[in-house]
Parts: sequence; C-alpha cells; structure tokens
Amino acid sequence: MQYYPERVLLPPLTTINQAIERAFREHGEGRVQMPAKVYVYFEKGDFRTMPAYLPALGIAGVKIVNVHPENPKIDLPTVMALTVILDPETGMPEAVLNATLLTDLRTGAAGAVAAKYLIPKRAVTLGVIGSGRQAVAQVNAIAEILEIEEMRVWSRTPANADRFGTLFDTISCTQASIERTCDADLLVTTTPSRRPLVRAEWVHEGTHINAIGADAPGKEELDPALLTRARVFVDDMEQAVHSGEVNVPISAGFYTADEIAGTLGEVVCGRKRRKTREEVTVFDSTGLAVQDLAIAALVMEAGEGTELKFP
Amino acid sequence: MQYYPERVLLPPLTTINQAIERAFREHGEGRVQMPAKVYVYFEKGDFRTMPAYLPALGIAGVKIVNVHPENPKIDLPTVMALTVILDPETGMPEAVLNATLLTDLRTGAAGAVAAKYLIPKRAVTLGVIGSGRQAVAQVNAIAEILEIEEMRVWSRTPANADRFGTLFDTISCTQASIERTCDADLLVTTTPSRRPLVRAEWVHEGTHINAIGADAPGKEELDPALLTRARVFVDDMEQAVHSGEVNVPISAGFYTADEIAGTLGEVVCGRKRRKTREEVTVFDSTGLAVQDLAIAALVMEAGEGTELKFP
Repeated sequence: MQYYPERVLLPPLTTINQAIERAFREHGEGRVQMPAKVYVYFEKGDFRTMPAYLPALGIAGVKIVNVHPENPKIDLPTVMALTVILDPETGMPEAVLNATLLTDLRTGAAGAVAAKYLIPKRAVTLGVIGSGRQAVAQVNAIAEILEIEEMRVWSRTPANADRFGTLFDTISCTQASIERTCDADLLVTTTPSRRPLVRAEWVHEGTHINAIGADAPGKEELDPALLTRARVFVDDMEQAVHSGEVNVPISAGFYTADEIAGTLGEVVCGRKRRKTREEVTVFDSTGLAVQDLAIAALVMEAGEGTELKFP
Repeated sequence: MQYYPERVLLPPLTTINQAIERAFREHGEGRVQMPAKVYVYFEKGDFRTMPAYLPALGIAGVKIVNVHPENPKIDLPTVMALTVILDPETGMPEAVLNATLLTDLRTGAAGAVAAKYLIPKRAVTLGVIGSGRQAVAQVNAIAEILEIEEMRVWSRTPANADRFGTLFDTISCTQASIERTCDADLLVTTTPSRRPLVRAEWVHEGTHINAIGADAPGKEELDPALLTRARVFVDDMEQAVHSGEVNVPISAGFYTADEIAGTLGEVVCGRKRRKTREEVTVFDSTGLAVQDLAIAALVMEAGEGTELKFP
C-alpha cells in the first residue's frame, strides 16, 4: 500500500480536465457505481464519506472529507481530505492519498468541463463570486479551455478580492460590485452562503453559471427565480437534491427536482445540451466520488508514494 | 497522521470486550452517529464503507472493508480492512489502521457481549458452526467471560474442524455432526452460507445463538422457524434488515422486522432482556462502525504508529 502526501508536482491541468471529463462521461453512461455521499455531523463541522467504483479505470475507493469552517482560526484548512484506493480484483487497499488539494483541482476541472459543453463561445467575460481556494481552482481550470477576456471578482471581504486578483499572471482581474460581477458570460459562485447572493435580474441572457459553493443542506447562492428561469444541470441527481444549489429551493417548495434538465455526465455524452444561445444555464456541483477516483488515478500513475506495510 | 500496521501486540481480550460493550451501550443510548454501511459491488466481491462518530470516546472515522471469497486462492485474506480516524474537533485525519485482525476481534467481542447479557449461566456447552477466523475470534472472546465446559465444532470440511480443535489450549473440542453441535447452551454460527444450515428442531430450549455469518443480502444460516420461535436481538435495525441473519426471511415474507425484540445496545443498557430461561435468544451480528472506532481507539492509545505527513 502506498501513501501519497500532498504533492508539489501535479499532472498538468489539461490532463486533469480530460480525466474529469472522462469520469463524467462514465457517470453519464451509467457505467459507475457511486452511492450518494454520507454525512456525519460534529459540533464544529462535518465529514462526508464518498465511495465509488469506476470500472473503466479499474479503480475503486472512498474519499473522506471534512468541512470545519472555524479551522482557519487555528491555521488548519476548512476542508481536508483523504482518499483510500482499493484494487477491484482483490479488494486490497492499494493507496491512501492526501486529497485536500486534489479536491480543489477536481472541482475546478468539473467547472471547466461544464463551461466547455455549456458555453457557446470560446472567449468569455468571467465573473467570480467569492475569492477562496475553490474560486482559484475554477479560474485556473477554466483558463485551460476558454479564453478569459476579462475577469471581475466580488468578495464580502475586499482585501481577499484584492489578493485573489494578484494570483493570475495572464488574466487581468478587476474588483467589482456583486451586480457588476454577475454581468458575465460565465459566472462562478464559490461561497459557503446560506442565503441567495445572486439576484436573477443581475444575470443576462446566455450566461452560464457554475454554482460550486452549495454542498450541504441549507447552503444556497442563487436566487430561486434564477433556477426557475435557467436550464439547470447537476452532477448527480440524488446529491444535488440533498445538498446542492437546488436543495434549499426544493425544500422550500420554490423548485422541484423534475425541473432539473439532467446531469453534466449526460451533457458530456451528448444526450442533454444547452438549447438556445439566449437561455441561462446552471451547473450545480456537489462533487462526485468518481472525480476523486479519476484524479487519484493520475497521481498514482505519476508514482512517488511511500510504501506502507499491508496486509 | 499515524499509520498502524497489523499488530503483533494487541490489548488483552478482556479490555477489548469492555471497549466493545461500551460502544454497544453508547449505541443503545442513542449517543452515536452511525449511518448504515454502504455497499459497492465488484465482479468477484464487494466493499463496505462504514462511517461513525462516537462522542463518548471523542473519536470518529470510517472503516473500509472488502469481501472477496476467491482471495484465498491467491493467498490473500477474503476480508481486509482499513480504518481512517478523524479528529472531531478539526476533521483532520489522525490515523489509518490496518483493521483486518481488528475486524475479527471486535466481532468476537460483540459475541462475548451478547453471551454475557443473554445467557443465564456462567458455565456453558458451546457449539461452533464453521471453523474459520470468525469462529476462532468468537471462542477466544467468549472464553474471557464464560466457562466453556465442552465445545463441539462442525465444519463442511472435516480437516478444517480438526485444525480448529487444536487452536485452544484450555478448551477441549470435539468434532461433531451439525445436529449434535447445535445441542448447546451457546451456539455460534460463522459460515458464509446462503441457505439455512441450523434446523429449528436441533436447538433446545434456553439456547442462545450468536448468528455471525450473515452480513450481506442473500446470506442466512438459521431456519426461519427458529427466528419465529426465538427472541431476536440485532446489532443495528437498518443493517440487520438489509444484510443480517433476518434479511432473507424478511425478503421472503417468513419474518418481519416488527418481530425483532431490540438491539444489543438496548440489552446492554438494561432496556431489553431475555425474558425466560427457556426461550431461545438470537444475536444477529452485522458489525457496527462504532465497534471499529472503539477498537481503533485502543490500538491508538497503545501507540506504535508510523508518522505520515498530513496536511
């Protein structure tokens, strides 16, 4: 069994994007096993357990990931993750990976896959709501597949938005009001908000939104009226209804699961798509265990683990 | 983060029995979080993911365990397990443990806890159906709390029963017919059978049965008529109905979940009990994630891990 600590050298983002696209294709074709993630709750946070099997890659395993919002006060990341990989032939544990950075990267890559298939242009204005790790990962992954002509960022804490703007060498970034930030071809929302931040009237025709922040019951970033107006794709139906952007509007009766247009996997497979240039599309990302397996496979192929005795 | 390989030095069985009894008490008092285990299926086996949080011990985590019946052909155990422990305060992974032997031990200890509370005598005749790792673990754990006056064993493969008999220094063991083996104060069934082996008429009044083998849909060891006649306790309602000894009779309509008398945790808490000396009692064990946390805590207290870099 190998242990893979957090890596300095990682596969190129294009390779990660391609691997994640393949994971979504397999999911869309129904060729994966992926029970919905399971939540356990603590006083100060929670952890989620995400098992899956991706036969096309011959890989199976479980990601275990926490969310503890107060961790930064004691200099620990809010989110930390470990992935355990099993050999499907024998069930033997093959690897344990520090998956904290990998979680950011595979979520960024999902946003890039959604943007690739759901935006009808190759050069875009990009609006970013929130300026944390997920915001950075989205921009980096998306920059691999789209030309970002202009980027605007809004954060509740302006100093964070300033710092965010300095992180990208080749993309110019302006700090803007939330209303102005929403006026974009591609809007990425990455906050842990528990009430809608993005009003429907701020979003123009044809915009695609990657709704990344909502990943637990009670979280939401978008005006429910925006969901009703948009064509909404989710990563996984069961997870999205439970904990994605649509969870609060569905619980409150403002939206129904029947209105969801389909999954990103179905989009990648060509069975679902944006129908007009004018409609607003939303990708509601909760994070799939098969994304974690796909990026773990890349890290394991690159080698560099530490051997641990097992069995 | 520490890695704990398979240990030669383990806590004494009495310590393990006490820790497992405490885990059942916490479960019985409703002071744990333990979502039902999740199954993922392979061509040649499966793996189960078992998350839990045991606040009384300040411990949380996930056991990941496979079952691949063909593994012995290539000199690997059928069952292998890894437990990941998280710090409830921060969600940070604290330890990864090789939990293969620990799984045997905590299952043996559950059988000992059931025997302690559900058998009205302190000296017993013991019948053992099956002669593998689980049979050995049951006998060792039970021998810590009951005097075993006589032990009989039955195995489909007589050579295995012979070998089993040589493993215990202080307990005399006789190989017997299955019918004769069932004539005992305490009967332990530990096979992977998918049809009933133990007939109701072979089991005398007052016998307690630890039904250990059935741990997945389709598995059963006991005549459904025996369940109907007995007072049945399970470790966890949801898991037992899904994959315990009662799963096949319930699916087939021979038994209903309403007939289950309660959980072992409720017995340990004193809220449920054997009602007469004459009735047959059954403990249907599927294995609880809180047992895995309790035994992991013992191993971690004993020290001896290997440091792994995290985060």
